[in-house]
Amino acid sequence: MALIVQKFGGSSVADPECIRRVAKRVAEEYDEGNQMVVVVSAMGDTTDHLIELAKELNEKASAREMDMLLSTGEQQTISLLTMTLNAMGYKAISFTGWQAGILTEDVSSKAKILSIAPHRIEEKIAEGYIVVVAGFQGATESGEITTLGRGGSDTTAVALASALNADFCEIFTDVDGVYTTDPRMVPEAHKIDRISFDEMLELATMGAGVLHPRCVEVGKEFGTKIHVRSSFNHNPGTIVEHFDGKAIEKQMSVSGVAFDRNVAKISIFDVPDRPGSAARIFKVLSEEHINVDMIIQAGQRRNENKISFTISSDDLDKTKTLMEEMKWEFHAKDTEYIDNIAKVSIVGAGMITNPGVAAKMFDILAKNMINIQMIATSEIKVSCAINEDDLEKAVKALHAGFGLDMPAE
Amino acid sequence: MALIVQKFGGSSVADPECIRRVAKRVAEEYDEGNQMVVVVSAMGDTTDHLIELAKELNEKASAREMDMLLSTGEQQTISLLTMTLNAMGYKAISFTGWQAGILTEDVSSKAKILSIAPHRIEEKIAEGYIVVVAGFQGATESGEITTLGRGGSDTTAVALASALNADFCEIFTDVDGVYTTDPRMVPEAHKIDRISFDEMLELATMGAGVLHPRCVEVGKEFGTKIHVRSSFNHNPGTIVEHFDGKAIEKQMSVSGVAFDRNVAKISIFDVPDRPGSAARIFKVLSEEHINVDMIIQAGQRRNENKISFTISSDDLDKTKTLMEEMKWEFHAKDTEYIDNIAKVSIVGAGMITNPGVAAKMFDILAKNMINIQMIATSEIKVSCAINEDDLEKAVKALHAGFGLDMPAE
Repeated sequence: MALIVQKFGGSSVADPECIRRVAKRVAEEYDEGNQMVVVVSAMGDTTDHLIELAKELNEKASAREMDMLLSTGEQQTISLLTMTLNAMGYKAISFTGWQAGILTEDVSSKAKILSIAPHRIEEKIAEGYIVVVAGFQGATESGEITTLGRGGSDTTAVALASALNADFCEIFTDVDGVYTTDPRMVPEAHKIDRISFDEMLELATMGAGVLHPRCVEVGKEFGTKIHVRSSFNHNPGTIVEHFDGKAIEKQMSVSGVAFDRNVAKISIFDVPDRPGSAARIFKVLSEEHINVDMIIQAGQRRNENKISFTISSDDLDKTKTLMEEMKWEFHAKDTEYIDNIAKVSIVGAGMITNPGVAAKMFDILAKNMINIQMIATSEIKVSCAINEDDLEKAVKALHAGFGLDMPAE
Repeated sequence: MALIVQKFGGSSVADPECIRRVAKRVAEEYDEGNQMVVVVSAMGDTTDHLIELAKELNEKASAREMDMLLSTGEQQTISLLTMTLNAMGYKAISFTGWQAGILTEDVSSKAKILSIAPHRIEEKIAEGYIVVVAGFQGATESGEITTLGRGGSDTTAVALASALNADFCEIFTDVDGVYTTDPRMVPEAHKIDRISFDEMLELATMGAGVLHPRCVEVGKEFGTKIHVRSSFNHNPGTIVEHFDGKAIEKQMSVSGVAFDRNVAKISIFDVPDRPGSAARIFKVLSEEHINVDMIIQAGQRRNENKISFTISSDDLDKTKTLMEEMKWEFHAKDTEYIDNIAKVSIVGAGMITNPGVAAKMFDILAKNMINIQMIATSEIKVSCAINEDDLEKAVKALHAGFGLDMPAE
């Protein structure tokens, strides 16, 4: 008998038919003798509909009232799923975020979970109930309803699994698991059976998109095993977990190839080489909530230099405005904005112990006549900024070159 | 400066346009220097839509899960109304039932309010906020969400007004106030400016429909003045309040004529005149939640008698089944079921001090050739069961006969 937390997203509970399918899935695992906690999101486009309604009345509604409004979405799903389980003859009970004891920061719309006091859930599990909990929401100490922002429901599920000491947390999605790269681009991509939290974090951050980095971080912190799998079939998916040393050495050095098309590169030339110039630039950008990814600072002439960095293309316009002010402030010579940039990364827990991996990556790209514009490395990944037109070629070459193409079965 | 609690029902907040209209109405009274608390219901057909969704998944969903589901309706309205007030430049904040401190019995779907701890509301009022509270809902001591059942939002409003020591509670509706009788039947009916809680209770119970008896009872208990008025205009409506002795004597003895078409009359003949026969009948009916209204027990022959009573026509089928069993149990001779019965009542606080009032009623009905089948009296009303075909004639005659026809202005 295991204690399992399952999470189903909005598209999995979009209509009564979908809700019935989810209920069956939950019931199957309950029937096998497991204790079940289920976390669900708002139904399909409920959230979008509510946002639209709000915008009609107030273009800039306060985050507090938006949380009050949007948290009703999951509350509807938990009751509907619970009724469905009841109709199938199962003991089930629903809890909102605050009823489930999910305490968050006092920050509307993007609150972080501070702690979970799961005694009501534990009580009901012990009584044989399937417990259905609203994802994406919690409450502050003073009883304000909050929502958790992006990746909120996944985070609720993994955090609950951690608080309950669950055996694992199943995140249901519309794909079979985490892939070595996007199968839409590389048909030879294959599902990864097992991946470490750190690798998953790198893949998640780089847009692999299956899991939100937040929930991976919670899993890593508490050592809570996450099983990412399809809601459409019963195939085993990808297990995200801690690897011990031995397992790491057995791992292939590269687990996946990630990429991001949505990158822009900014350069500012002849910035005076004073202490604090770079700091000043990145402080201004961060104040405007512009996330900077790769950074290169390269000396060109005496006392002057060039700073290049990448951002999300979405932030390009805002960044341009700021950089032109900065150029004036620094008496810099010139600025350059290139939007058709992409980032390709290889990710693997074993990478740091295999120093040849980065060299091999550069070699593969060079052989394919792909020019590397910037490089960034971490303990478990190497990223290169390249011309967007070269992206598909690069991903395919790296996927094949690192032996990730699906083995003939 | 007054503290005012306003209540707007579902049709008043059915869409964004309606919500904006309500916001303006609230803002007007706030601008006059009043402190405002606003209670709202779920938008238009939201509740119906949710019930439909629930039925699709579980025909007999538990009351607890229905409360979890339906309480989201008002939660959406409070946030949307608050955003609208914010957009107009007003400080406003929304509270769910549990956030507003509304503690209820641990009974789903029809919980009674036990107490209200309004400190969060009082705090925000003191800070100059317009406080928007979800009607129809509360929470139990253990944190279960409950709904209040029929008349719930009106009751929330009057209970809040009582707990906050508000100057009065305004209930907005689609009519101008409480009328001397239904103006659709008697065009000469006119709005009552002022009525006592007891009279209002009698009118409410007898289907005048503007206010639910529950909220009138709360108002009576705490002496909270209720102002029933139209959401479509600014005319003064009807004030429901305690009258002191002097006011009663100044009052006209009859304030209104109420009626109910939805009445059935049941008779059981030759019930053995044993102690407990009648009690047994009414116990069985009450166990099946059948409400009995008027009762007559008339001895006919030695040791045998006839019991007649009226019920809502809706309960007739169920009652028939029970009565046929009872007939067998009592060896009663016969039963009779008449569905085309109506009840007409005159209501007035001054009635008990005017003994001629009942006699005058019977006289008016007799002059109009209307046969009285049953009579019931209380301190402030006299009701007669009559043939349904005679109802309109009876109401008009009584309305005119007691001087209620609108005075020419």
